[in-house]
Amino acid sequence: MSKDITQIVRQTLGLSGTSHAKHQKLDEALVTDPKPFVLNTEFQSSSTKKAHFELYENYIKSFNRVSAELDSADRSDVNSNNSQFRSLKIDETYNMNAIFLHELYFANISDTSSRITMDSLSYMRLQRDFGSFDKWQEDFLACCQASRCGWAITYYNLFTQTYMNAVVDLHSIEIPVGCLPVIVMDVWQHAYYKDYLRDVKTYTIAMMKELNWSAIEARFKQAERVAQALRAS
Amino acid sequence: MSKDITQIVRQTLGLSGTSHAKHQKLDEALVTDPKPFVLNTEFQSSSTKKAHFELYENYIKSFNRVSAELDSADRSDVNSNNSQFRSLKIDETYNMNAIFLHELYFANISDTSSRITMDSLSYMRLQRDFGSFDKWQEDFLACCQASRCGWAITYYNLFTQTYMNAVVDLHSIEIPVGCLPVIVMDVWQHAYYKDYLRDVKTYTIAMMKELNWSAIEARFKQAERVAQALRAS
Amino acid sequence: MSKDITQIVRQTLGLSGTSHAKHQKLDEALVTDPKPFVLNTEFQSSSTKKAHFELYENYIKSFNRVSAELDSADRSDVNSNNSQFRSLKIDETYNMNAIFLHELYFANISDTSSRITMDSLSYMRLQRDFGSFDKWQEDFLACCQASRCGWAITYYNLFTQTYMNAVVDLHSIEIPVGCLPVIVMDVWQHAYYKDYLRDVKTYTIAMMKELNWSAIEARFKQAERVAQALRAS
Amino acid sequence: MSKDITQIVRQTLGLSGTSHAKHQKLDEALVTDPKPFVLNTEFQSSSTKKAHFELYENYIKSFNRVSAELDSADRSDVNSNNSQFRSLKIDETYNMNAIFLHELYFANISDTSSRITMDSLSYMRLQRDFGSFDKWQEDFLACCQASRCGWAITYYNLFTQTYMNAVVDLHSIEIPVGCLPVIVMDVWQHAYYKDYLRDVKTYTIAMMKELNWSAIEARFKQAERVAQALRAS
Repeated sequence: MSKDITQIVRQTLGLSGTSHAKHQKLDEALVTDPKPFVLNTEFQSSSTKKAHFELYENYIKSFNRVSAELDSADRSDVNSNNSQFRSLKIDETYNMNAIFLHELYFANISDTSSRITMDSLSYMRLQRDFGSFDKWQEDFLACCQASRCGWAITYYNLFTQTYMNAVVDLHSIEIPVGCLPVIVMDVWQHAYYKDYLRDVKTYTIAMMKELNWSAIEARFKQAERVAQALRAS
Repeated sequence: MSKDITQIVRQTLGLSGTSHAKHQKLDEALVTDPKPFVLNTEFQSSSTKKAHFELYENYIKSFNRVSAELDSADRSDVNSNNSQFRSLKIDETYNMNAIFLHELYFANISDTSSRITMDSLSYMRLQRDFGSFDKWQEDFLACCQASRCGWAITYYNLFTQTYMNAVVDLHSIEIPVGCLPVIVMDVWQHAYYKDYLRDVKTYTIAMMKELNWSAIEARFKQAERVAQALRAS
Repeated sequence: MSKDITQIVRQTLGLSGTSHAKHQKLDEALVTDPKPFVLNTEFQSSSTKKAHFELYENYIKSFNRVSAELDSADRSDVNSNNSQFRSLKIDETYNMNAIFLHELYFANISDTSSRITMDSLSYMRLQRDFGSFDKWQEDFLACCQASRCGWAITYYNLFTQTYMNAVVDLHSIEIPVGCLPVIVMDVWQHAYYKDYLRDVKTYTIAMMKELNWSAIEARFKQAERVAQALRAS
Repeated sequence: MSKDITQIVRQTLGLSGTSHAKHQKLDEALVTDPKPFVLNTEFQSSSTKKAHFELYENYIKSFNRVSAELDSADRSDVNSNNSQFRSLKIDETYNMNAIFLHELYFANISDTSSRITMDSLSYMRLQRDFGSFDKWQEDFLACCQASRCGWAITYYNLFTQTYMNAVVDLHSIEIPVGCLPVIVMDVWQHAYYKDYLRDVKTYTIAMMKELNWSAIEARFKQAERVAQALRAS
């Protein structure tokens, strides 16, 4: 029923059925295209998935527009109180983080035959840096519950050269510098409210049951190569 | 239907109504020691330098304390409104960023015989990704002026695989995810107010005249190795 | 010379080198109880309403706990990098804002016979300060769309002594100082995602159709009395 | 000596002696003019005072420009990821808060014959709501030390109808909704770094020794009238 409310309201208010995106594809600057993702999970409704992909596409549109506007923004008279350059740089990072975190999230959930083996690099590194795999799980779940609309991230820290968990608010508050994410969980309310209402814990546990450990393993291997590259000085 | 997902998930996962899993103490906390830095620059007073090192040491003390307290923080009953775990995780990232950014800053300024050559990797990469070395300079200076007490950072973006500039407020607002810093400028007021009062522009230009391009070149080379490691999948 | 000021001040004030003054326990903490609200609107599902009241109650629980913990928090050795006192004060404001904004929101929506007359104070003041009632509507709707999970607020500004609109992120980012709210809209995703998915615009228009103008009129009258009190100096 | 560094740098770098503000006075929208303040305190150097007034004037210039640009900003296609309207609204609050907090600060410090009597409203209200005047002092000083570049504020809370202390970061993070400030302390580094370096505690105590209690008493009386106006419903 709840889905119909939108239609009722739109009819009552005489609103047209679809929104009309004026934005056209940009030619210059950094331009990103949305990647296709398929989510088979039954722990999210199809309407949640659809709306989530649309949000992701909007971040890309916004990033492309910001990036194009930055090309010609005045850099000669910038100040911190108010200037177009500052506003665009702030929004550049905000939307860029939104894009990359969403891509990492979509790619690391929804593995309905999820399985991790004890001889995988993922397992061994989490065990090494968190004490045990279970302790990583407990800490990661706590991070998901701690965020005020944002993200929980397990990342390889390029400075400490260990795997750590971070709590992020929105897309860009409290991101660690030098962070290469390997496991990413969206805990904005848009990720779970339609299906779980305010029960972020159940949503998180459901997603953690279906983590795509083969995708994650590839990230750990990449992080390990990065670690070697950092040390080879 | 969507409401039922919660029940389905709870049944599937065998979740009881209450939380469990009291956290056990981890064995070791991350502990960092301050590194020694010598700043020969005449563009900062000795009192500014001394106070800056003391601030840096305080971030390390705070980080070590936070890290130790996190070992035993309760992870079983965390929420986003108020919990010790959340507060500590937020402060962990804040202080960690403060430490690493200060170390990168101290190590890349104050080269009184500063010199960059056109055949260096630094020069060529900045030219490639900003259009010209001068455009990088202009953009970086604008970033320094745009921050509301914080940092300007030139970084290798692990996702776009290009060098970009970022404007950061305080130590952790608007940090890009996947950022490996190569050039770092402190534009908190503590970096310049004693010597330049509110004239952040003159301070920044002075620091930019003395960038330690050999230290920076080593970072670009490291970033290049990281780039190769990321692509070798 | 400026360096010596510290010494002069310390001598003048008779400050010893070390801090003292261990904090004594305060007698009473602020304790708040949830108020009952009834929402008749058909533009929100009953599950959205129920979950919203539960969130509101959780903010109150958190605020009461923070307030009690502040009573005995150490004030003798506070710093900005990490201290229990700082974390609690930050969470005090966060939860307090959440409580009062939710109470104002619940009380000013869901009037299914909503009606504003041109001779009301609300109408005349919005007309005076925004140019026309329609312009206020347009500006308020834009504020609702501009927030990154947060609030739009029409408030009496105690300093400019005019009615203005504000865009707030989360509960406490970009709140104007000296703001007495008269019209409050929740645009966190929890307010609309269950029923409208990402369509914040339709949700907002629906809520604006049912603004409780008699509750709002009382607030404008209160603000007017406050305005007189401020001027009677 | 430190003051001369600016000149040395400017000469070395061939920078012109003065910055050239292009900004002209705006005709329309909300326009604020800087008020004149005289600070007799010997606990701040004249260069700190001068630079502080210039910062204050810059906030006013920025606010006036933001306010004018808001007049014609597009409100028909606003979104939270990136839009001119959003950026301007965020900067409107930021600069407005900066202006009013600075005015309150300048007007409530630097009374070289500072004195509070036990029969004043200020004293009685702080005693009532903090347990004792000394406890208010201790709490306020702790708030000053807890801020990450920002403000400590004693304010009349329009909702709790009590006087409370708040810790604010920058100008607009963690401002309580419904806050009427009565005592305001600037703890941005620009307020003290020239004279006290990182010793925010000594600076704060010095300022607290010279609080202008007659100016503050007028604010408490105003707050008391506001309290009556709020209750007279």
